[in-house]
Amino acid sequence: MTALTLDANTLLEHIETLGNIGLDRLNGGRSRIALTDAEKLGRDQVVSWMKAQDLVVHIDEIGNIFGILPDQSGNTKHKALMIGSHIDSVFNAGALDGCYGVIAGLAVTKAFRDEKIIPSRPIIVAAFTNEEGVRYQPDMMGSLAHAGGLSAEQVLNSVGTDGTRLGDELQRIGYNGDMPLGTLVPSQYLELHIEQGPVLDKEGIKIGAVSNLQGISWQKIHIKGKANHAGTTPMSMRHDAGYAAASVMTFLRDVTRSKPGTLATVGSIKFEPNAINVIPRAAEFTVDLRNPDNSTLYASEQALTEYLEVLSQKEGVTIETEVLARFDPVIFDENLVDAIEQAANALNIPHRRMTSGAGHDAQMIARIAPSAMIFVPSKDGISHNPKEFTEAEDLVQGAKVLLATVAALLSPTQQ
Amino acid sequence: MTALTLDANTLLEHIETLGNIGLDRLNGGRSRIALTDAEKLGRDQVVSWMKAQDLVVHIDEIGNIFGILPDQSGNTKHKALMIGSHIDSVFNAGALDGCYGVIAGLAVTKAFRDEKIIPSRPIIVAAFTNEEGVRYQPDMMGSLAHAGGLSAEQVLNSVGTDGTRLGDELQRIGYNGDMPLGTLVPSQYLELHIEQGPVLDKEGIKIGAVSNLQGISWQKIHIKGKANHAGTTPMSMRHDAGYAAASVMTFLRDVTRSKPGTLATVGSIKFEPNAINVIPRAAEFTVDLRNPDNSTLYASEQALTEYLEVLSQKEGVTIETEVLARFDPVIFDENLVDAIEQAANALNIPHRRMTSGAGHDAQMIARIAPSAMIFVPSKDGISHNPKEFTEAEDLVQGAKVLLATVAALLSPTQQ
Repeated sequence: MTALTLDANTLLEHIETLGNIGLDRLNGGRSRIALTDAEKLGRDQVVSWMKAQDLVVHIDEIGNIFGILPDQSGNTKHKALMIGSHIDSVFNAGALDGCYGVIAGLAVTKAFRDEKIIPSRPIIVAAFTNEEGVRYQPDMMGSLAHAGGLSAEQVLNSVGTDGTRLGDELQRIGYNGDMPLGTLVPSQYLELHIEQGPVLDKEGIKIGAVSNLQGISWQKIHIKGKANHAGTTPMSMRHDAGYAAASVMTFLRDVTRSKPGTLATVGSIKFEPNAINVIPRAAEFTVDLRNPDNSTLYASEQALTEYLEVLSQKEGVTIETEVLARFDPVIFDENLVDAIEQAANALNIPHRRMTSGAGHDAQMIARIAPSAMIFVPSKDGISHNPKEFTEAEDLVQGAKVLLATVAALLSPTQQ
Repeated sequence: MTALTLDANTLLEHIETLGNIGLDRLNGGRSRIALTDAEKLGRDQVVSWMKAQDLVVHIDEIGNIFGILPDQSGNTKHKALMIGSHIDSVFNAGALDGCYGVIAGLAVTKAFRDEKIIPSRPIIVAAFTNEEGVRYQPDMMGSLAHAGGLSAEQVLNSVGTDGTRLGDELQRIGYNGDMPLGTLVPSQYLELHIEQGPVLDKEGIKIGAVSNLQGISWQKIHIKGKANHAGTTPMSMRHDAGYAAASVMTFLRDVTRSKPGTLATVGSIKFEPNAINVIPRAAEFTVDLRNPDNSTLYASEQALTEYLEVLSQKEGVTIETEVLARFDPVIFDENLVDAIEQAANALNIPHRRMTSGAGHDAQMIARIAPSAMIFVPSKDGISHNPKEFTEAEDLVQGAKVLLATVAALLSPTQQ
């Protein structure tokens, strides 16, 4: 297996090619929202690369794409090693989030093809449907469903922010495949991804061996107060939904100080009627809480719940909370994380163990198979933005570590 | 003058008739936004009532409507007593805000017509253009311009929230009149209005003799931080424009506690990119500060400015403030306030002196003529809402006090 060589040039070229699909050259960002025309073109490109390598391509009934390099006996399923990520994007995205992992997976299979080496177990490169969850909720939808967390029917009947039904859009772009959902259960899963955070970049370390992933709690908070005239309503008689929302936001900052490791973000907000001289009748906002430790995450959620009760009394407002998503922290497979570290060691690339702050398809596949992730640095931690950037050399090194990890996992001593 | 009688039935019927124009019978509110088709129909109705009383009708070049009952010598300008308000509304409004004052003005002139009494001075009933400022900024536009605070050109070139030019819309609805702006300078101005606040309703008092009006400070605050991933950006590395906005909102509540009489409202807010898992790059929100005392109002503005400076440093965000409107507190004319109180006394109606919390056309006309206002109760202080409500009896009593005040001001001893 030592003959395997990563084709760095093709890797970088493919990243550029896929990054040009859906690109707005004026602002530098690309938008390949799941199941749009632009994302269909991205899928076509990935499938054409798979076919160019003579991989066995399967599309499942929710549009997950699998390109398989079979083992010596032509087996495409048994004891497969899966390398996956996604190619859908947020609005105005960078070129790396997700795409890098899929393209690096294809660089791994290409390394085998280039040397005409048949792997001892099948290698599956997966591109999961709708990881970003911009148009259809929840995010990580394709991998969650693949791991059994959603039925095909639930996925297909999802209604998008634009009122479309996912199943209709999938059919429209021709990616309603015939493989039943959940058919390909791997025996191991690896995902290479940009960090989307500042840790590696700040520390000048090139590889993150991701040993766990934070828990995520997403809620929407609905506060109902009473609209009234801003100039005539005494402060003591107000039921100001907007002020109550602001109180929650400043309280959450306090929570991050008292509960170690907690991240809290209010990213989206809406007032009604949203007029300069009217006390807000209603405020609606999202709360994103994260922690690698589940009990601390629960404690933060509990602290928020208790605060909302007191606030509701104090301000005379009614408060309802809606759980949008709740994922427990994930501990990745120790053997796979070891294998990643050993591969980086063998290549003499500086590495560290780390926690993933963002959610990834790997956390879903971890429900059905030993899984781990490899991170490369993100400049200034910026992602979901045209400024998302990783040095070409770092991208190549990440793919080399992935390839070396795969090679080691497929070596006879590991069978 | 003792023969003057208020026609209560016509007053209430006219309120209902005007309130039906632009009415959405499903939700009970009407929308007669300035210079829309619905507001044109409202204007047509008011002009037709003026003509039915054989008043001299003038429309000025910015669409302010004047119906004049001339004095014995046919004079329509000299020493005129003006009764004014507006007939435009916010979205989904009640039937009383503004309309009540114009219709009550016509009830006063009708009382003269009914008894065939020619007043000793002209009585002008005015309906000012665009008091609400929903579509075109600033609010109280017609009266402000009438008082010299805006030129006709400035008004006509205002661009609306819908991108329309005010002058074009005025022409479209046929209310681009030929009277030069500011022609009719009254010698006294009265405005009857619902309180739009809870004071009279709560105290069970039927008439407010409004002796002053709060100062109003409207600002828009623009905070620019840095968008970043909610799951990967440590709290210490964030420049969260949304959190900074929330801090300002809670700080403003503190200001209302430390600066007596201050009202502070954040009624409207917007985050960018407004996504659940992205730290807000930008937050934009309005601040409405009010106080009857100008030095306290300035002190509140100053406290906000100082807070924004500290916050900008602390959170690593840039903050810009934009003044949307700034009106000093207005002290109404003592003689007119006395006259209102005496009229209420003579009619045996319980009354009190009070401050107007809301802005009104009277505050603009006060720049060019002695002015005062009469308030009637608003149920629960609710306004700008289909639930806006004043008992029919209270509406009639308010108009009776207006009529009695006018009669006293026009009596020979007052000339």
